[in-house]
Amino acid sequence: PTAGLPPVIKCKAAVIWKKGEPISVEEVEVSPPRANEVRVKIVATGICRTDDHVLEGEFPGIDYPVIAGHEGAGIVESIGPGVTCVKPGDKVIPLCVPQCGECSCFILMGIDTDNSRHGLYGTSRFTCKGKKVHHFLWTSTFSEYTVMPEAAIVRIDAAAPLDKVCLFGCGFSTGFGAAVNTAKVEPGSSCAVFGLGGVGLSVVMGCKAAGASRIIGIDINKDKFTKAEELGATECINPQDFQKPIQEVLVEKTGHGVDYAFEVIGCIDTMTAALSSCHLAYGTCVLVGAPPLRSEISFDPMLLFTGRRWTGSLLGGWKLKDALPKLVSDYMKKKYNPDALITHTLPFEKIGEGFELLHAGKSIRCILLF
Amino acid sequence: PTAGLPPVIKCKAAVIWKKGEPISVEEVEVSPPRANEVRVKIVATGICRTDDHVLEGEFPGIDYPVIAGHEGAGIVESIGPGVTCVKPGDKVIPLCVPQCGECSCFILMGIDTDNSRHGLYGTSRFTCKGKKVHHFLWTSTFSEYTVMPEAAIVRIDAAAPLDKVCLFGCGFSTGFGAAVNTAKVEPGSSCAVFGLGGVGLSVVMGCKAAGASRIIGIDINKDKFTKAEELGATECINPQDFQKPIQEVLVEKTGHGVDYAFEVIGCIDTMTAALSSCHLAYGTCVLVGAPPLRSEISFDPMLLFTGRRWTGSLLGGWKLKDALPKLVSDYMKKKYNPDALITHTLPFEKIGEGFELLHAGKSIRCILLF
Repeated sequence: PTAGLPPVIKCKAAVIWKKGEPISVEEVEVSPPRANEVRVKIVATGICRTDDHVLEGEFPGIDYPVIAGHEGAGIVESIGPGVTCVKPGDKVIPLCVPQCGECSCFILMGIDTDNSRHGLYGTSRFTCKGKKVHHFLWTSTFSEYTVMPEAAIVRIDAAAPLDKVCLFGCGFSTGFGAAVNTAKVEPGSSCAVFGLGGVGLSVVMGCKAAGASRIIGIDINKDKFTKAEELGATECINPQDFQKPIQEVLVEKTGHGVDYAFEVIGCIDTMTAALSSCHLAYGTCVLVGAPPLRSEISFDPMLLFTGRRWTGSLLGGWKLKDALPKLVSDYMKKKYNPDALITHTLPFEKIGEGFELLHAGKSIRCILLF
Repeated sequence: PTAGLPPVIKCKAAVIWKKGEPISVEEVEVSPPRANEVRVKIVATGICRTDDHVLEGEFPGIDYPVIAGHEGAGIVESIGPGVTCVKPGDKVIPLCVPQCGECSCFILMGIDTDNSRHGLYGTSRFTCKGKKVHHFLWTSTFSEYTVMPEAAIVRIDAAAPLDKVCLFGCGFSTGFGAAVNTAKVEPGSSCAVFGLGGVGLSVVMGCKAAGASRIIGIDINKDKFTKAEELGATECINPQDFQKPIQEVLVEKTGHGVDYAFEVIGCIDTMTAALSSCHLAYGTCVLVGAPPLRSEISFDPMLLFTGRRWTGSLLGGWKLKDALPKLVSDYMKKKYNPDALITHTLPFEKIGEGFELLHAGKSIRCILLF
């Protein structure tokens, strides 16, 4: 190694060599961080549906081979020149939506043309079997060591349990933020949450924390109702139990429709159903579930014209570098408890099993430990 | 007449006997106001595109014959039992979106099932040639005298010029409110306004009042650019001057898209163009133009998923009873000047000529005086 530079690290990582192929645990080489970059030892990482989209080739703009994973927590191993926000030994959460503080960046999916200024764009710090392996969303937490630009990392409370707060890197912050940050749910309001997976349950927690008086959980899998009610849902319904469309059921239940509806499935039909479920004059509908690529929604614009609001919420709409330390600190004060989302914990090598649990609908969140 | 009741008044009004027929100035009888109703002498009324929709049969839920008109100002002539908010002689503006203070009412278009509680629903205080004539939106300002429920009227400054502030009953409040109330445009932000008619120009005034630093007016009629620039547009563009879609032009002009886009045409294609023109993470698109009945928009939900907000703004999203007196009082303080929207003033009998000016695109707002 060059004098003064940290060494290349060999460690295990899960590589996706081609879309559609099973994920493969390999030994990879991780280069030292360059200027304004940080190398992190990942301690724990969740498996999110978005990682599955990378496996299936359903995530836009991915080059293979790639190391996925974006819901992690770890400890800074080394820093490149110019890094000021963290030092070795700090507990950190990688940010799959970076916040550089300089531009109005929102860099996900390569839509923004300013990616280059956030580092790592078009380059890699990973190799495996002599081949360059691509990064994913600046995070690539399915590697024991990973390199991120400074914009994609934030220090958190030194006492935070990394095997729990890794969820703040995506799932929990996405759902909780959709309710408290994007929708800004008000005390006493009525909410409907379409889809009671890990993110949907985090929406339920957000609605409860915001003081909603009515939180209606909706899912076609009744097994999810018990946990939803534990976490704050005041009732849960299965659309298959009704002869009429679910939006009509919700409007009847609430008189004029709910104040807030959240779509946390990523399905076109439930997106318009959620919109129609809202109060026509001041209801807010938040799209949280990622829509299928190149999909198309058709709807009558009169649904919006009367005053409804329809909005997306990518990672809770947070500026993550500002928001995450506070969210973790509120968790440490027991203001909410996303631990309830963790149904499985596995050693990292069993990542394939983790994806199987996800596919089978058996896990809410499965945490992998290095 | 019954002892103590004000008399039936005979006066002139413009009756639409059937959809598609020319509007007809007639003598009508106006019954006295019943409990919680107010009879108003209309002094001035604007002609709005929405009235034209009634003529053409394009407004939902209308029974004919009907007296249209909803952008008026007048003086209370008499009040029914129980009325407390106004007294004879008060200057008032009729509210085509009533605010009763008791329910979350939003009653336009008969969508709400609680119409009955706001009075007049299914009944009428107008007759003409022995026939019952229907009310329109609680206001029917195309009659020299008209009866409204208390929820559909608000007192304004006694010094307000009625031939000007009638515009606050619809056009000006709709556009101005879309910017300052629904979108809550922030100082220094960038705005795009699609359509520079009376409402679009009111959006421009709202953006300017809110401190927007860049206000881009968009219209295929270049004749509208001079007035738009007088009222606050920092530049105006004609989509026909470009080879590429207007949303691409706007994204290029602003780097990442505008902070706020307003669709003030009521055209499906410009509704999605306006959405696409906004910043992908925090742009807001407001639908102000009424969409065609039973129309359908198709769009890629990814446009919303990244964080854009899409919302309607019916009559500026105001609670009109709370908002209008303040809006009129700010006008009296010369904080903005919607007088510039008035291009024609005609005696009421020339209402047909007023509609011709509208159809020919020659008027912005034409005011009729009784």
